[in-house]
Amino acid sequence: VTRVTLLTDFGTADGYAAAMAGVLATAAPGANLDAASHDIPPGDVFAAALALSRYWSLYPEGTIHLVVVDPGVGTARRAVAATADGRHFVAPDNGVLTWVLRAAARVRLVEIDAPELTEHAAATFHGRDLFAPVAARLATGVPLEELGPPVHDPVLLAVPEPERSGSRILAEVIQVDRFGNLITNVPGGWAPDGRVAVEEVDVGLVRGTYADVAAGELVAVVGSLGLLEVSVRDGSAADRLGAGRGARVIVSV
Amino acid sequence: VTRVTLLTDFGTADGYAAAMAGVLATAAPGANLDAASHDIPPGDVFAAALALSRYWSLYPEGTIHLVVVDPGVGTARRAVAATADGRHFVAPDNGVLTWVLRAAARVRLVEIDAPELTEHAAATFHGRDLFAPVAARLATGVPLEELGPPVHDPVLLAVPEPERSGSRILAEVIQVDRFGNLITNVPGGWAPDGRVAVEEVDVGLVRGTYADVAAGELVAVVGSLGLLEVSVRDGSAADRLGAGRGARVIVSV
Amino acid sequence: VTRVTLLTDFGTADGYAAAMAGVLATAAPGANLDAASHDIPPGDVFAAALALSRYWSLYPEGTIHLVVVDPGVGTARRAVAATADGRHFVAPDNGVLTWVLRAAARVRLVEIDAPELTEHAAATFHGRDLFAPVAARLATGVPLEELGPPVHDPVLLAVPEPERSGSRILAEVIQVDRFGNLITNVPGGWAPDGRVAVEEVDVGLVRGTYADVAAGELVAVVGSLGLLEVSVRDGSAADRLGAGRGARVIVSV
Repeated sequence: VTRVTLLTDFGTADGYAAAMAGVLATAAPGANLDAASHDIPPGDVFAAALALSRYWSLYPEGTIHLVVVDPGVGTARRAVAATADGRHFVAPDNGVLTWVLRAAARVRLVEIDAPELTEHAAATFHGRDLFAPVAARLATGVPLEELGPPVHDPVLLAVPEPERSGSRILAEVIQVDRFGNLITNVPGGWAPDGRVAVEEVDVGLVRGTYADVAAGELVAVVGSLGLLEVSVRDGSAADRLGAGRGARVIVSV
Repeated sequence: VTRVTLLTDFGTADGYAAAMAGVLATAAPGANLDAASHDIPPGDVFAAALALSRYWSLYPEGTIHLVVVDPGVGTARRAVAATADGRHFVAPDNGVLTWVLRAAARVRLVEIDAPELTEHAAATFHGRDLFAPVAARLATGVPLEELGPPVHDPVLLAVPEPERSGSRILAEVIQVDRFGNLITNVPGGWAPDGRVAVEEVDVGLVRGTYADVAAGELVAVVGSLGLLEVSVRDGSAADRLGAGRGARVIVSV
Repeated sequence: VTRVTLLTDFGTADGYAAAMAGVLATAAPGANLDAASHDIPPGDVFAAALALSRYWSLYPEGTIHLVVVDPGVGTARRAVAATADGRHFVAPDNGVLTWVLRAAARVRLVEIDAPELTEHAAATFHGRDLFAPVAARLATGVPLEELGPPVHDPVLLAVPEPERSGSRILAEVIQVDRFGNLITNVPGGWAPDGRVAVEEVDVGLVRGTYADVAAGELVAVVGSLGLLEVSVRDGSAADRLGAGRGARVIVSV
């Protein structure tokens, strides 16, 4: 079974996501469609890129990850397809593949050159008229190289990097998840015994698990992406600290 | 593979949507279930009808579109099944098929007559006890005609129509999508060079694509339904204009 | 086709739900994945248990219901797997299976003993690193008994029970659904002709269906779980009465 995952900021209520699924169901009838998410905040390429980083490599080789968070639809932004460590990708060239391209050992990337599709595409909905048909081609066995010429300069997001300054790591919150966990840009291995503060509020030492503090208390742990996270056990660190993406994090090591 | 799509206003958190899926999985084990959406606003038949219009014909022939937005559950409203241009539909007879019945070239419509189901159906949940079992019958090959007698007077929604008045088109916003785009009832072909205003605010000439204006600016384009839409590039026209369904639109041609 | 349903409080936007799906797609490639819901309120085990009660038995025997609403992740809470009336379950031992264990005629329950998984599991994400791999084992035919030793004392939720007091039933609202229906803990059979009040507000006699009152009026009916519910026809009883989980219900019989 070929699986196609869909990641968009369309929501589902308007029928746009189902339109893409319908195109795929027609053009690649044997494919299994998995909605990864349609709930990316509108236009939030960074959030989509981070979400994608959490699952792309867990799917088997041959999976097609279709990503349409595309605030640049209707502009001259390129459309790309890629194969990275055996999984395929179809997406706008806007940085949404940043973590995939960083993490994969083997990457091939092409610009989608499909005038027969773009000529008739609605200016506002390339998900339906360009990206889904191209994903269906991959799902039915069309080789990546037939989709268009190689790309060597994909758009990459400027991901904030932590900096060491003496005994301190100057870092930041790069994402808040649904539970209110503050995901920082500090790799867990950098500061296994560090002391963490968010916007001057002390969070304590890095712990092994939520259970190392009482319910309702702040705790820093290494999360499932391998990055340092700040949480409240059975609560929301984002609410507690009034902190979001970009909040300043200091780890004293 | 027979595909069954589900469109409801149930949300997913209560387990109602999964109950319908479970009934289908049991009665039509080979069917592939695609959640088109469970996020239609509660009872909003118009929104469901418009969402359905965006995807029903993109699925292959033989697909079964199950639609349960059913504020009239427990009243005498009819339940219907239909075949339109090769796709099947199961839904309450409340207008949710309006755009399907308008657009399809070949339509057969029947009233579902299934006393063995309705006698035991929960008064509040025909999705589980009537509509899903009937969809499963279609999925397993039962002919439409065996489901009940023909219907010739389906309920249709009163869709507001634009009016020409001299050099102006008097129209309205019929839907706001997740991006804050204002979808009007003006067919794109009516006013390719028109000048658009929403509630007296000038939006400018109809453009080809979002890229024809700067980020943050209002723009009128022909959207993916073929209707005139008013947007803000990289923003929300609904927020900018404080406008929603029913807002007055004037196109000067 | 083996079906695996997923019920979580992860939302979809962070990519956690897709990570679980990816693990399943890799380890049980033939399985069909149905997202029952990812929208359970964060940490709300009671809501998840009630949602699960609505659909688990409607799926065919052999289905695997994977439930990861797991506020205790990283604590010493057990992980369990079960077979109940032919359906399989993988979940934290936190009460989320309460209604399944109550309702099923035949139950086998084991504690998951998989050190090769738990040793390498992220402390914050057993859904990906423990529960999904175990569900995949069941999906590929591993017998329940091979997953670990029997459990005889599963955690059960303290479900509030209605009490009879003379001619009155003292009860409460146990859940509010998406439509604002107030689901009580009173079995429909207890008071077919009773008169219902919520927090002192009279709702009238138990009716057969919403259609027995006019639009906008309060009505008590027996809902699809077989429990007494209080609704507003074409509206929200929760909004009308300002009532939620725990609100006092009195039925005079």
